[in-house]
Amino acid sequence: MNSIAIIEKKKNKEHLTYEELAYIFNGYLKKEVPDYQMSALLMAITLNGLDEDEIMDLTDIFIKSGDVLDLTKIKGIFVDKHSTGGVGDKTTLVIGPIVAACGLKMPKMSGRGLGLTGGTIDKLESIPGFDVDLSEEEFLKGLEKVGFVNVSQNEKLVPLDKLIYALRDVTATTESLGLIAVSIMSKKIAGGSNNILIDVKYGNGALIKSKEQALEFSELVKKIGHKYHKKVKTKIDDMNVPLGNNIGNALEIVEVMDILKGKEGYLTNLCLDLSATLISMGKDISYDEAKNEAMEALKSGKAYQKFLEFVNNQKGDITKLKVSPYTIEVKAKTEGILKDISAHEIAKLASVLGCFRLTKESKIDYSVGIVLNKNLGDPVKVDDVLCTLYVKNNMKIDTDSIKCFKIEGGK
Amino acid sequence: MNSIAIIEKKKNKEHLTYEELAYIFNGYLKKEVPDYQMSALLMAITLNGLDEDEIMDLTDIFIKSGDVLDLTKIKGIFVDKHSTGGVGDKTTLVIGPIVAACGLKMPKMSGRGLGLTGGTIDKLESIPGFDVDLSEEEFLKGLEKVGFVNVSQNEKLVPLDKLIYALRDVTATTESLGLIAVSIMSKKIAGGSNNILIDVKYGNGALIKSKEQALEFSELVKKIGHKYHKKVKTKIDDMNVPLGNNIGNALEIVEVMDILKGKEGYLTNLCLDLSATLISMGKDISYDEAKNEAMEALKSGKAYQKFLEFVNNQKGDITKLKVSPYTIEVKAKTEGILKDISAHEIAKLASVLGCFRLTKESKIDYSVGIVLNKNLGDPVKVDDVLCTLYVKNNMKIDTDSIKCFKIEGGK
Repeated sequence: MNSIAIIEKKKNKEHLTYEELAYIFNGYLKKEVPDYQMSALLMAITLNGLDEDEIMDLTDIFIKSGDVLDLTKIKGIFVDKHSTGGVGDKTTLVIGPIVAACGLKMPKMSGRGLGLTGGTIDKLESIPGFDVDLSEEEFLKGLEKVGFVNVSQNEKLVPLDKLIYALRDVTATTESLGLIAVSIMSKKIAGGSNNILIDVKYGNGALIKSKEQALEFSELVKKIGHKYHKKVKTKIDDMNVPLGNNIGNALEIVEVMDILKGKEGYLTNLCLDLSATLISMGKDISYDEAKNEAMEALKSGKAYQKFLEFVNNQKGDITKLKVSPYTIEVKAKTEGILKDISAHEIAKLASVLGCFRLTKESKIDYSVGIVLNKNLGDPVKVDDVLCTLYVKNNMKIDTDSIKCFKIEGGK
Repeated sequence: MNSIAIIEKKKNKEHLTYEELAYIFNGYLKKEVPDYQMSALLMAITLNGLDEDEIMDLTDIFIKSGDVLDLTKIKGIFVDKHSTGGVGDKTTLVIGPIVAACGLKMPKMSGRGLGLTGGTIDKLESIPGFDVDLSEEEFLKGLEKVGFVNVSQNEKLVPLDKLIYALRDVTATTESLGLIAVSIMSKKIAGGSNNILIDVKYGNGALIKSKEQALEFSELVKKIGHKYHKKVKTKIDDMNVPLGNNIGNALEIVEVMDILKGKEGYLTNLCLDLSATLISMGKDISYDEAKNEAMEALKSGKAYQKFLEFVNNQKGDITKLKVSPYTIEVKAKTEGILKDISAHEIAKLASVLGCFRLTKESKIDYSVGIVLNKNLGDPVKVDDVLCTLYVKNNMKIDTDSIKCFKIEGGK
């Protein structure tokens, strides 16, 4: 067996066996197969696809490349979720406390952001003292006590994914449905939970381009889950606006608390829906019953208490959360209805403010960001504040050049 | 402009501009673009193709990556040929002396063999003392005096080709028609000759698989030549048998001399045909007139004298050419007609004997090889010698396991 012959087969649209996939992917992990051969294979896979057996086999190879979290040491019903991570996506930090308040256990591992994407771990680190690197013992103890822990991706789980993900990112091979499924599902299965919810975003800006592809992807992840005796549900969604009103690390933690304390809106409803799905899967009850439990957890303040408990358990001091005192208001110049808020333009603006990490080495300013003062569909008058920018001291922003908002139907 | 966006475009079957191709290929030459990005691009090109403009642009970028040989310093009509290099292909060493004897000049650069392919440079180095690395001055002087020089590929011409060729070889991206055309034509144009003959082999074992592809490829190289004001002719061929009777470095030099001294057969006719094509292009005379000149050069012994002059000019001592004295005969076990001699099996056998270089570092035994005692179509009786193996002292070969010959139609 040799790498060139394996690449050759995939280039010719032939099926790769488990042994062939294991040979080249494990060889890559052991640094016996060079980057340039793996990237040629990834391009051939992106253009010629993987069949279902290959996806199953590759998921297995990914999982076996590292440890699998053993949750049997503690009791409970374990749930996990994956989101593709849109702009302002803070759903994990709302859902975790809700489902924990309803008696489920959510052991969550998340990533840091890179480029125009925020990462849950960065958001948590905006809370002074918050520890995202727990030992396995601390992780399990916190899960048992609080019901929700959220740490940085464990390096020992699925090490192959980290390597392949980084290579896909720089070789334009990110949108193979098969590779996306392998990447997400290997991590979820290694994470040990039995009930998994996958949020499938599609659209122009997303890796998955069409509803048909999203449905195909949804079937795929369910089949993978079935093989490992996991319940998997998916939520298919083409929304491409910022999730919630706040963008920026500390500002997003503020919004998480606002929602847990009763703020209503699209994001609250989304989080309730996702929580209800997880609760109905975990407890094997109807969606409506589960939704009632989730709403009760929110209304009673139990979910908010759970959030404080969660932050406290990971040594965060929420009283020290810091938002920049320097603000700039962006005002409307025309009147009409707010028809669109471009997630991509908001992300670019947030990047200018310093919310994101542009290279692996750059530092984030946790205290800066954007608060959207208007929601989609709101009427807008001239000089209404569309959004408020929280900026570094002395930062100048040319608000006239901001292209995030589409206002139509005015006089 | 950035590499990922360029790879992305080719992956999506979009056209790449001259600037984009120059950015990524010149970046690769300068080591600013890593191997793994270039190999992803090469795979996307292999699967999605290059359009004609892209091929023209890329050829230009390849040529400009290094020097172009300036032949205007000496007078003459310059011809060049490229063969895909089948098993036992020694045509260059027969054609060079013939066309030089007819007054043309053939400045030839060749490669070394790797794997199951022989290289003209290796064949020449089997002649003790033969110098394949001439300075530009020596090269031009020899060309002026003898009319035929053959040296190792000049490192200063088309340095991009050497890099890309090596990467294609290990990433299963060798058979893109566009990339093959760019590779061959950039070297031929940088080599400076005005009359170029390209031998296009197609078939199962070749890079070009079908006659349709061979015709397409033929049109392509002609168009590239036209742009650089070069006359280009092609010879399309699906023969997949060893060229001539001798395989192995010194043995092939022996056969070259046999042919130049009057030995007849398929290979002699092929070399006369290719020589006639070059002569008719160079002198602008009819093919028949040119063929007569070539035959006369052979019959008169002038071509053979040219060969000796050529060897002498490059400091080779033909009297010291050494063929192994240890031989093993392979005899027929059935009778019938010799229907096929498998070039691939012959190459594998020659490799076992030590004719080829299996890694870049391994040493060749110039004195070993195979002499085919029967030609395609010959009648064969039991115990007739099919071929004679020239082996290292004490080498044992299980002749029963040799699968090179197909004999059919016997009783």
